[in-house]
Amino acid sequence: MGPNKKKVRIRRVEIGGNQPLICTPLIGKDISELIEECNKIMPKNPDIIEWRADFFNALDDTREVIRAGQRIRDLCADVPILFTIRSVREGGQAIALSENEKIGLITEVCRTKLIDLVDYELVNESEDINQIHQAAQSAEVYLILSYHNFDKTPDLRFIVDKLHQAERQGADIAKVAVMPNTKEDVLTLMTATQEANKEMSIPMITISMGELGVISRIAGWMFGSDFTFAVGNESSAPGQVPIEDLRLAIQSLRKVSGNS
Amino acid sequence: MGPNKKKVRIRRVEIGGNQPLICTPLIGKDISELIEECNKIMPKNPDIIEWRADFFNALDDTREVIRAGQRIRDLCADVPILFTIRSVREGGQAIALSENEKIGLITEVCRTKLIDLVDYELVNESEDINQIHQAAQSAEVYLILSYHNFDKTPDLRFIVDKLHQAERQGADIAKVAVMPNTKEDVLTLMTATQEANKEMSIPMITISMGELGVISRIAGWMFGSDFTFAVGNESSAPGQVPIEDLRLAIQSLRKVSGNS
Repeated sequence: MGPNKKKVRIRRVEIGGNQPLICTPLIGKDISELIEECNKIMPKNPDIIEWRADFFNALDDTREVIRAGQRIRDLCADVPILFTIRSVREGGQAIALSENEKIGLITEVCRTKLIDLVDYELVNESEDINQIHQAAQSAEVYLILSYHNFDKTPDLRFIVDKLHQAERQGADIAKVAVMPNTKEDVLTLMTATQEANKEMSIPMITISMGELGVISRIAGWMFGSDFTFAVGNESSAPGQVPIEDLRLAIQSLRKVSGNS
Repeated sequence: MGPNKKKVRIRRVEIGGNQPLICTPLIGKDISELIEECNKIMPKNPDIIEWRADFFNALDDTREVIRAGQRIRDLCADVPILFTIRSVREGGQAIALSENEKIGLITEVCRTKLIDLVDYELVNESEDINQIHQAAQSAEVYLILSYHNFDKTPDLRFIVDKLHQAERQGADIAKVAVMPNTKEDVLTLMTATQEANKEMSIPMITISMGELGVISRIAGWMFGSDFTFAVGNESSAPGQVPIEDLRLAIQSLRKVSGNS
């Protein structure tokens, strides 16, 4: 862990502590699918649940979204909920909302306090990021500012800069998820994580996606990545592995590293 | 695996195949200790046994060394045996032999064909390396040329060069084991391995030692390191972990990487 890193405590988990946290996505398209997913995932004890609301059909119906949020909140008990509307250009589903409508919806959802964290993308206008930042802050919801690249792994400097940029723009947690095309790319992502970790004062999530990058999901915490995504029921991104397998792999790595 | 990499098949194992092989050391100081070690280690199914003969008290008694080799051979059944007299400057024990006597002993031991592989250090004179190379070759024993640094991790270029140098000087397998002082050092060793792997035509063993470097022992195979050292009974180098734990960690990593 970086020397200056703040920990973020949310409900029963501590982000940025010694333990890498495992987050599993919900990708249901309506309330009944979401309920089914929650029921399947909760027995697997995820540390965090990410509701990938871009998969939700009625995203243009704020009331329905809040109803869904309420059900998820009830079913997830004390597990922190991350609310994410991933944009198409960063690997999400097509949605019916304009960026402004999306910001409006996120603001409403924050206000309900049904969620604990919200993800918004660094590629957005600074003004939009500021709005989300304010909405999150006034509802005491933690903000993840994220960068995704599904085509390639940018160079080390670019990745480190993105993480710093997230911090400068007010994130509580910085996220970078990039696609490796070679094994070097995987090592570049891990080296960038280690480099950023020395200077950042907020927790980070860094991922080298796809099959090539799986080691980053298991060992990323050694280099400063504070949480990792796993499949609870269905995958939301390439390279995600089942939560049971990921947990076992992390545990055995921690054991042999003397960190268990 | 590198595109040009030859596989080395020895008895029941294949070095440079898809599986990282696990090698456990014997460090007994006399025949009875070696027998005891073999009996403890064999049920743990190591892929390779390294006899660290620098720990053997009667190293100046060639007959006694060969007697010990015979006992180890009998007890190890079909597991390949690597014979190593590690020098003090590269982390071994003080021995009573001059370099010439050591070369003489290695030559004798190769001739018996009780061993399958022999390790010799790249730091030695080219002429000495040539002698060992010839002794190994004429006895059909495979040669590992190795570089160790117990103080630090040299830079990426240096590590890649050492691996290439081993190949140029006739090694069947190239080995580099270095000590990390930072997490960057661990990533440097893994990145160097990956880089060398693209060009080398022989299998490699690369290790980032100590507690910091444990990930290299578990995940090194992903980047081209073909075998890894684990504790069977007693450790012979800093950072070695028990074979059972290492095997479990590698298996769970292979499982989540889709390589199992």
